Amino acid sequence: MIAFRASTGKLVECRKSIPKLRAGWALVRLRLAGICNTDIEILRGYHNFKGTPGHEFVGEVTEVAGVSAAEKKRWLGKRVVGEINIACRAFGFRPLCHFCKTGLTRHCERRKVLGILAHDGAFAEYLTLPLENLHVIPDSISDEQAVFVEPLAAACEILEQVPIKRFREAAVLGDGKLAQLIARVLRSALPSVVMYGKHAEKLGIARRAKIETKQVRGDASDIKRVKQSYALLVEATGSPSGLALAQQMTEPRGTLVLKSTFHGAAPVETWPIVVKELTVVGSRCGPFDKAIALLRSGRVDPRPLITNTFPLKEAPQAIAFAQKSGVMKVLLNNKV
Amino acid sequence: MIAFRASTGKLVECRKSIPKLRAGWALVRLRLAGICNTDIEILRGYHNFKGTPGHEFVGEVTEVAGVSAAEKKRWLGKRVVGEINIACRAFGFRPLCHFCKTGLTRHCERRKVLGILAHDGAFAEYLTLPLENLHVIPDSISDEQAVFVEPLAAACEILEQVPIKRFREAAVLGDGKLAQLIARVLRSALPSVVMYGKHAEKLGIARRAKIETKQVRGDASDIKRVKQSYALLVEATGSPSGLALAQQMTEPRGTLVLKSTFHGAAPVETWPIVVKELTVVGSRCGPFDKAIALLRSGRVDPRPLITNTFPLKEAPQAIAFAQKSGVMKVLLNNKV
Repeated sequence: MIAFRASTGKLVECRKSIPKLRAGWALVRLRLAGICNTDIEILRGYHNFKGTPGHEFVGEVTEVAGVSAAEKKRWLGKRVVGEINIACRAFGFRPLCHFCKTGLTRHCERRKVLGILAHDGAFAEYLTLPLENLHVIPDSISDEQAVFVEPLAAACEILEQVPIKRFREAAVLGDGKLAQLIARVLRSALPSVVMYGKHAEKLGIARRAKIETKQVRGDASDIKRVKQSYALLVEATGSPSGLALAQQMTEPRGTLVLKSTFHGAAPVETWPIVVKELTVVGSRCGPFDKAIALLRSGRVDPRPLITNTFPLKEAPQAIAFAQKSGVMKVLLNNKV
Repeated sequence: MIAFRASTGKLVECRKSIPKLRAGWALVRLRLAGICNTDIEILRGYHNFKGTPGHEFVGEVTEVAGVSAAEKKRWLGKRVVGEINIACRAFGFRPLCHFCKTGLTRHCERRKVLGILAHDGAFAEYLTLPLENLHVIPDSISDEQAVFVEPLAAACEILEQVPIKRFREAAVLGDGKLAQLIARVLRSALPSVVMYGKHAEKLGIARRAKIETKQVRGDASDIKRVKQSYALLVEATGSPSGLALAQQMTEPRGTLVLKSTFHGAAPVETWPIVVKELTVVGSRCGPFDKAIALLRSGRVDPRPLITNTFPLKEAPQAIAFAQKSGVMKVLLNNKV
């Protein structure tokens, strides 16, 4: 099969045999994969991962191992998306780790992560995942929507962590792909969401989803100019400089959700967290079922975020394109 | 009256007239004042405060202005401690600010802070505070206990912010004055509290209060050596390097309480907060009534933390002594 592996700064095509399955695992033929900023960071050395990147996908189950005939029939040919954290149980580890025991499998101490950590990902014709990680996509959701389930679930995680009904509005710092999904998810639960971003065009996309927008410069000078503050603010700029502005823009006793992961120590003053008694909530992967329900309800439509779709075999060109200014979601297509 | 003002690096004696009172305010004659690390930071330029420092005190009400005779009688001669944040109402500001309206007077947008921000503090024969800030100290609590009410309340704030009943143990990073009070307050609510500090002698004081202790080096090398992690951890080292270790020592989905305020940007990597989905809670001033109740119950006794007591007129020598290695709480005595 065709697959791509992370090399320094780029994707390199390689031929691999179709992976063998452990009992309880599925082979999934890719339909669409999405390129995420994490994939770009991986090419820059994040996690020192040299395998096949890609963790946003929708595909079709083509094989299942070690289950009953009925179970197999339930899965074969189904369109699925997949949770990316692969926990103790799937590799046969016993006893389960502390977190798996308490149900926090996304924080499994021995986890591998699809396309990010020790397990090949979706920039390939086929990928493998445990059945317990898969979610069937209903017919009413298109591939172009389903490929957003993983990042949309990450946005939905905020609703799991924050008592959203206590708030009347929220602000989102950042206008990129994840920030756009977060703003849409918050807007599905709150009467008012304000996005602060530096790209007029991206802010325009947000406005069409009933998100209020304010343009900022996206550098340290914003600290002096932005005077508004919010009881709930989400930092999703993907940039180390976002945190200082985020602290300033969160009200005393307010909640600041951190969604950006980036490399390198940011010189952050933490005394505002103490003096303002902020609650800072780190937020990573989220509930796939909630994301699928949001797509099915039509309350969130991520398709306006798609800038371009490339054939899978042009993955190297696609990931180069994804790094250009103004580009939002780039997809890889492996549909027949 | 004798008072001391903050100068660069030291306290300077000055003569002042006894302050005039606004209606609803009290004149308090100092009995004991405590020296806090914040006072030392003020001498180093924190808040650019050039007035009289000192915000930990117990004193006696000697005058009250603008209240009924009955109210006046209720206060005169009483031993009191005082909350340090002076809010809108006390200065006659109308309308009240957003936070005062919602009862969060400790976060008042226009607040002055006793001995820290625009209002002279306790390193003087007399200080003034609004009556609404004062708490009468019952006879069963000595001056030497009462002078700890302010920092003890700051420690109690953690119990207001964190659902403590969900935890079975906690760790405290730091073995200084505030860390010691925090560990005692947590120990009053939890079966097990572990203090990580670098001073054998200070850890010994903690052990006598049924706090488990572990000695660390207090530098970046601890990151490699400390393997334990906790669902609830309080960072109270007062040092920028504490935060990285604190993040490492907090379990995925755990709660990290920040109590240290210090100057200067610490080079902090924030991605562990996101990847581990930590909840980071900034915590500052706390409820005086809870602190007084803890002292009265005998469940927390801060007196073993007193290293030395100086007469008020030796305040400059006292604050120099307080900065010596191994010294814990230093008090200033103005009792007749």
